[in-house]
Amino acid sequence: MAQKNNDELFKNVISHAKEYGFVFQSSEIYDGLSAVYDYGQLGAELKNNIKTYWWKSMVQMHENIVGIDSAIFMHPKIWKASGHVDGFNDPMIDNKDSKKRYRADQLLEDKIAKYEKDGKTEKAAKLQADMDDALKAEDLPRLKALIEEHEIACPVSGTKNWTDVRQFNLMFSTQFGAMAEGSDQVYLRPETAQGIFVNFLNVQKTGRMKIPFGIAQIGKAFRNEVIARQFIMRMREFEQMEMQFFVRPGEDKKWFEYWKEARLKWHKALGTPTEKYRYHDHVKLAHYANAATDIEFEFPFGFKEVEGIHSRTDFDLSQHQEFSGKKMQYFDAELDENGKPYGNYVPYVIETSIGLDRMFLLTMMNALEEEDLSTPEKQDSRTLLRLHPALAPIKAAIFPLTKKDGLPEKAREVMDALKFDFNCIYEEKDAIGKRYRRQDAVGTPFCITVDHQTLEDNTVTIRHRDTMEQQRIEIKDLHWTIESKVSWRSLLSQS
Amino acid sequence: MAQKNNDELFKNVISHAKEYGFVFQSSEIYDGLSAVYDYGQLGAELKNNIKTYWWKSMVQMHENIVGIDSAIFMHPKIWKASGHVDGFNDPMIDNKDSKKRYRADQLLEDKIAKYEKDGKTEKAAKLQADMDDALKAEDLPRLKALIEEHEIACPVSGTKNWTDVRQFNLMFSTQFGAMAEGSDQVYLRPETAQGIFVNFLNVQKTGRMKIPFGIAQIGKAFRNEVIARQFIMRMREFEQMEMQFFVRPGEDKKWFEYWKEARLKWHKALGTPTEKYRYHDHVKLAHYANAATDIEFEFPFGFKEVEGIHSRTDFDLSQHQEFSGKKMQYFDAELDENGKPYGNYVPYVIETSIGLDRMFLLTMMNALEEEDLSTPEKQDSRTLLRLHPALAPIKAAIFPLTKKDGLPEKAREVMDALKFDFNCIYEEKDAIGKRYRRQDAVGTPFCITVDHQTLEDNTVTIRHRDTMEQQRIEIKDLHWTIESKVSWRSLLSQS
Repeated sequence: MAQKNNDELFKNVISHAKEYGFVFQSSEIYDGLSAVYDYGQLGAELKNNIKTYWWKSMVQMHENIVGIDSAIFMHPKIWKASGHVDGFNDPMIDNKDSKKRYRADQLLEDKIAKYEKDGKTEKAAKLQADMDDALKAEDLPRLKALIEEHEIACPVSGTKNWTDVRQFNLMFSTQFGAMAEGSDQVYLRPETAQGIFVNFLNVQKTGRMKIPFGIAQIGKAFRNEVIARQFIMRMREFEQMEMQFFVRPGEDKKWFEYWKEARLKWHKALGTPTEKYRYHDHVKLAHYANAATDIEFEFPFGFKEVEGIHSRTDFDLSQHQEFSGKKMQYFDAELDENGKPYGNYVPYVIETSIGLDRMFLLTMMNALEEEDLSTPEKQDSRTLLRLHPALAPIKAAIFPLTKKDGLPEKAREVMDALKFDFNCIYEEKDAIGKRYRRQDAVGTPFCITVDHQTLEDNTVTIRHRDTMEQQRIEIKDLHWTIESKVSWRSLLSQS
Repeated sequence: MAQKNNDELFKNVISHAKEYGFVFQSSEIYDGLSAVYDYGQLGAELKNNIKTYWWKSMVQMHENIVGIDSAIFMHPKIWKASGHVDGFNDPMIDNKDSKKRYRADQLLEDKIAKYEKDGKTEKAAKLQADMDDALKAEDLPRLKALIEEHEIACPVSGTKNWTDVRQFNLMFSTQFGAMAEGSDQVYLRPETAQGIFVNFLNVQKTGRMKIPFGIAQIGKAFRNEVIARQFIMRMREFEQMEMQFFVRPGEDKKWFEYWKEARLKWHKALGTPTEKYRYHDHVKLAHYANAATDIEFEFPFGFKEVEGIHSRTDFDLSQHQEFSGKKMQYFDAELDENGKPYGNYVPYVIETSIGLDRMFLLTMMNALEEEDLSTPEKQDSRTLLRLHPALAPIKAAIFPLTKKDGLPEKAREVMDALKFDFNCIYEEKDAIGKRYRRQDAVGTPFCITVDHQTLEDNTVTIRHRDTMEQQRIEIKDLHWTIESKVSWRSLLSQS
């Protein structure tokens, strides 16, 4: 039953996102492009607001963090240095009859799940251990052998006629320039982080930054996911918000703990119930890390990573030092406990990395509610998007009660006074109740209605989204009433 | 002399952009990536502010314009429909000895320029006419023949040993997915406009938009330029701010004129001298257009396009209707002069399209000034970045006069009061005069100095960037003093 409700919530979010112009399938009139989505007129605003919240929180609120905007195209050697050319692979296997390609480990995972479902716990555990060993050793023939031993068949053809397992790199590549003698292969970046590492010295020097300091960036990244699914959870083109914090070696653990806490606080300031979040410490660490935690959110399909906090050591800067031949060092003039300057070193790095699209999905999921408004006399409900007012795409909707008697003109005056400071809309069509409900469904915190009394005393009714409470206030008080709820100040001061 | 000054201004802008963290060469530690640049810590802020100005001006200030954010990856058929697969080409020719590749038309253009320089006006005119004919007819053998007839040699090898002329498509392509039987070729979008056209119906329906209405978008686009040059003027990866305005057929000319005027006003609101801008009406029109104008800015290398306003007719929507098989029509319920509804039609489109990076360059160029401050007694000057305050990366710099007597603590109090609303920096190092000059060079409109008097009466000095005037004001008046200059309201109300 819980599972059914969760599936339904997920379906509701997807259809709500489509119906109200938050998220569309990419290239929809051409029957779509797999694992790519477009943000519609309200989605683009919500996404921009999430970006702004993160950027202000990181850059504007931290004296020692600055933001950059590096290009998607980077020198191909960078991905050799970072390990992506050699290590950013999935083990793939093809069925010769169906011509379908699968991730070898996922075929095995499915089999393990089946053993468990059938009560064959021991068999499941054995296969899990064997697979883990093979993956760790990158032993591709062993992975194939496991598929054959456990008689795994292709779900499409039903046959066990498999090719060898091969590594498949997840980076997209393209050809650069128009050289007569063959072009240069470049990659679409699979993460924004490397754009920060290669600019470390430029930013440190021109910005006169002192350790500890951070460089933040928001931007697109690309991964040629073989199995892309779950709406905007895992896309081939996605957006990251990453910050690399450069620290003195030996102080990395302290800063790792600091950012773990700070980042969770950022999420919670949006009003998400605390129990929806949890930390998940990595047991198996990536080759570059000495500590790593995920901040997980409870999606309808279970707790999933939204943000990662990684202690990346000096791995990346050292690799770039080696591959580029340029010193990636910092001179630390501060004195240590023995009264000597710390001197030259390659800084250690703590990374915070959010998937913006997941953050968007989380925000929609957490906000969407079917509220029961039934009374003993009458069944009623409304669809409500309980977004934090600072994130809401539209801050105020302005309605003339009717289309005559000068009310539209007066309503436009109100609109003109507010539109410079807030994203407002004007609407005069349909009954007022219907107009309210439409704004509830897209998360607009305030609806302002101009009626006949307005013409007499310059007061309007302002309706609050969450409580549906209506207040009569003077037009001149509208600005601060809205401002006090939607301003970044209120959100930033809690995060 | 004027040319020399112009060359120098351009060089100064490039080195200033590098020195103060506005623009870095991409992948610089790997000796760079041709025609790709990164925005540094101040450049990212300036670029974001230009985006915000455009977005607010388009979306927030126009009731009938909404913004979207569509993906870079799109269905490959879209570029067939738009004409980019077949028509977005440059004619290229290789020299067999140097192995260098050239644009055939540029080799010919260079020759024409040489004829003109040598006073061979007739020869120049004849070649120009021949070349235009060949380009119009897409007659590649004729282009080669012209190169041979006019004895054009490779600037590198000096030989006339040429290959045939071939078409070279400017779109970057990559392979999508991991199909066993060959993958799908997709392109990186060469313009953001098509992401708007294919979402026309989604936005119109879910946003209940009525014609005339517009859809705006800011995003990356990619072109495999063979000859990329002039810093960030022509890059392989760049950013566009485009708006497509959908109108009733027959009303396209009226709206074309409207947007021509509106867009120039937007530029001028930034305070750029009027004579730096001009319109350039296209005589030769692209296949999709029935009218087109460039807004040109006087760069050091001459008047160049910053923004294009194009009357694209119903070309794009009709093409997508044909290629996708979906009706791209709008039902217009309004009554015409005969009292009948306009009914169903494919809307006409007016496009406004700015190159964001060019806009960035223009803004830097126009703002950078070496101001002579010499007096009869002493030679002096300062480097000033006279950015519009709303665009300035940092709004206020807060300085304690000295590092002791509690001034840093008091200055941080001032910082804490302002930092929620404005991007501020705190600086206590170096003499106050040096700190002022550093902020002048990055365009910070206000410097606020906390001194001993501040401790007594809660006043500070506020220094104005352009006039260097210093005022003594109360701390509580800082907020509105800054706000009144940097707010979007002041800029938007003029545009």
